[in-house]
Amino acid sequence: MAKEKSGIPKGTRDFNPVEISRREHIFDTIREVYRLHGFRPIETPAMENLSTLLGKYGEEGDRLIFRILNSGDFASKVDDADWNDKNSARLSAQLSEKALRYDLTVPFARYVVQHQHHITFPFKRYQIQPVWRADRPQKGRYREFYQCDADVIGSDSLDNEAELIQIIDKVFSRLNIDVKILINNRKILAGLAEHIGFADRMTDITTAIDKMDKIGLENVNKEMLEKGLTPEAVDKLQPVLQHSGSYKEKTELLSGLLKGSATGMRGVEEIREVFDIVNVSPLHCDLELDLCLARGLNYYTGAIIEVKSTNVEMGSICGGGRYDDLTGIFGLKGVSGVGISFGADRIYDVLQQLSRFPKSTASFTQVLAINFGKKERDYCLPALEDLRSIGIHCEMYPEPAKIKKQMQYADKNNIPYVMMAGEKEMGDNRYSLKDMRSGDQEQLTLEQIIDVIVS
Amino acid sequence: MAKEKSGIPKGTRDFNPVEISRREHIFDTIREVYRLHGFRPIETPAMENLSTLLGKYGEEGDRLIFRILNSGDFASKVDDADWNDKNSARLSAQLSEKALRYDLTVPFARYVVQHQHHITFPFKRYQIQPVWRADRPQKGRYREFYQCDADVIGSDSLDNEAELIQIIDKVFSRLNIDVKILINNRKILAGLAEHIGFADRMTDITTAIDKMDKIGLENVNKEMLEKGLTPEAVDKLQPVLQHSGSYKEKTELLSGLLKGSATGMRGVEEIREVFDIVNVSPLHCDLELDLCLARGLNYYTGAIIEVKSTNVEMGSICGGGRYDDLTGIFGLKGVSGVGISFGADRIYDVLQQLSRFPKSTASFTQVLAINFGKKERDYCLPALEDLRSIGIHCEMYPEPAKIKKQMQYADKNNIPYVMMAGEKEMGDNRYSLKDMRSGDQEQLTLEQIIDVIVS
Repeated sequence: MAKEKSGIPKGTRDFNPVEISRREHIFDTIREVYRLHGFRPIETPAMENLSTLLGKYGEEGDRLIFRILNSGDFASKVDDADWNDKNSARLSAQLSEKALRYDLTVPFARYVVQHQHHITFPFKRYQIQPVWRADRPQKGRYREFYQCDADVIGSDSLDNEAELIQIIDKVFSRLNIDVKILINNRKILAGLAEHIGFADRMTDITTAIDKMDKIGLENVNKEMLEKGLTPEAVDKLQPVLQHSGSYKEKTELLSGLLKGSATGMRGVEEIREVFDIVNVSPLHCDLELDLCLARGLNYYTGAIIEVKSTNVEMGSICGGGRYDDLTGIFGLKGVSGVGISFGADRIYDVLQQLSRFPKSTASFTQVLAINFGKKERDYCLPALEDLRSIGIHCEMYPEPAKIKKQMQYADKNNIPYVMMAGEKEMGDNRYSLKDMRSGDQEQLTLEQIIDVIVS
Repeated sequence: MAKEKSGIPKGTRDFNPVEISRREHIFDTIREVYRLHGFRPIETPAMENLSTLLGKYGEEGDRLIFRILNSGDFASKVDDADWNDKNSARLSAQLSEKALRYDLTVPFARYVVQHQHHITFPFKRYQIQPVWRADRPQKGRYREFYQCDADVIGSDSLDNEAELIQIIDKVFSRLNIDVKILINNRKILAGLAEHIGFADRMTDITTAIDKMDKIGLENVNKEMLEKGLTPEAVDKLQPVLQHSGSYKEKTELLSGLLKGSATGMRGVEEIREVFDIVNVSPLHCDLELDLCLARGLNYYTGAIIEVKSTNVEMGSICGGGRYDDLTGIFGLKGVSGVGISFGADRIYDVLQQLSRFPKSTASFTQVLAINFGKKERDYCLPALEDLRSIGIHCEMYPEPAKIKKQMQYADKNNIPYVMMAGEKEMGDNRYSLKDMRSGDQEQLTLEQIIDVIVS
């Protein structure tokens, strides 16, 4: 076969051992905290029926779904008129029946409906799997990336919101990342729109105030005026937008302002209840009521949650909220859910920037046995088996290469100890153990070696 | 949106929590043994460039590769003449530039070539990821399934073959599956073909004898005659095909028969050396020289390995071998490799049939706290946090539902302990703990509860 160039599709990545180990540190932490709180894992196929995915992510989303070309003689099954038109948009539905999942939420909704008779509700599930999007690749945005989701479905109790906040707190505390958790409630946003007399312009209002961080108060106000809000309405919002007090002060303010809006008052109540439950066991990080938070508004119906690193400039590293009718599109009505999703790639970047990956994530083998030849190899092999039986990762260099080459192998692979045995050691039933960091070398029994390594 | 049917593409699967937990038991076991032997993880993207995959798996394999439909206006980029022909085979290359990986071996070869300047050889890597094949789905054969591969690349020492056999032995011993490991060597097969005067008919000969298990000696002989071997040649093979002795007896026989074949004698030597190294630390299972073993012959150049369960009828559950020029197709010549691959789906089926999954794989939450209302909830929440801080998985039922419903939740989710606190318990700073299996219930302090659960 001819030589081929050996690249990978743009926007995708290979992961080397250290990268895998670091990513697993993140996944393992999230997974363990999910399990500590009683969440159970599911997995769904990489491919879903195209009809399951289409129409769930908006027009832009539909364009970004990776479609699988039908197998066999796909062309023969396409309508002749469409074929002659060469219209890609109309043809794609006939050339493709399956697609790669775009997120974990829609496959989860499909899963719940499909398996509803075997599921005990409330169903607390987590799912850590890759998703694919035909987005334009750029720094920090990939075409294949992992999502780490947890959702509770079939319970509208606010205990669930509180538990998800505790989970977020625990994950970032264990990862040693300082964060603040921002929370808001869509009902408060609806109440505010009502309060200023523009209940029907909620999307315009929230789209504008959601940009507060990026464009500042002045530009937010300008945008609302451009969208047709009256100066009086914008004025009425200012006490809320400019408020920087505690959650108690903010909820007091809102209780006054939103008296006329049943929805708004319910939102304030919900926020209070969530804070009350969360405060039963204090958090490590700050939980803050952010009245400008409005992410994914078309989707969420109650709580909205977003997490930001307090040390590194890096958008949202976790987010979520309550949605009231996720499974309705697949025919199961009236099931409320609330969920969160950790952004593993951004968390990776934060840990990298802060140099907070545990040292162990850069190291695999703990002991390399030097291969001096058949006799020495056969002397060391059973010792390595003894080390493995107590969980020590070790290896014998696979051939009697020059010692310099074997030492370089230990060095480049970050192996902290090298073990050797020549005539002398074999006669004494011992091994020389070299500490690769200090350079110290000692003749030790296997028991002493174990003591050194596990200490 | 209209109600949609909620199925998944044929040949793919959803995995529920117990299935995930059982599959993770298999993956974790394999992963830990790989790491104990110094193998390091990599991952590659689900999508490869189509050109990386095409031509590597034969004509049949090419047909079974799932292709990704190009994004955007794909039709406009297709040659008009080909379009008018409606020839699917010629069109697919123009409609698709990317495809889902078909195995882990070719992506690994691509990885090694692409990253060769950052890799320290010998490179011991493992990789546990799904692969996709547009095969006709049938019992035990799926369109999405996991492979669990380990390879050593850049070393032709037989120490590697021996280590991979130790790994296989350790994995199945830890999984509590009785197996026999079959080994052969392609050089012995070549020597035998030479010996009977049909060196040029090696594929026909090995294809026939590889079926010994399925069709029996008589039919194997018949097939060889039909393929044009002379009765004399077939006769000369009989002592080998009918030999059921130990590996020592078999190698002695071969040493006599293959004297005239340098290749054959080298194969016998290699087998002897592998047995010698393996025997330094005895295996748990049987290692057997199987002179009829010939799997994947076009691919392997030295050792051929296959593993079978001794209790369950179930084809090969692990296989591998030595290949001498895997990276050559991508432009890196002269790099020898040897690898194995565990079939996770078949191992799952064997464990299922033998009921050998650990009990822990069917259980997640260890304690459910019953929710009697706000006061009782707030009394129990800090206790749950204490349990979590020492690694106990627990949850509070998220709403004050009827006790019967909460108990059913514990029962259906296989939760072994239920914790409750009413006025009495709260006054005594205690909790009632109910053992769901025995039905026993006691009032205990939190410390006593921890003792019960971790004992």
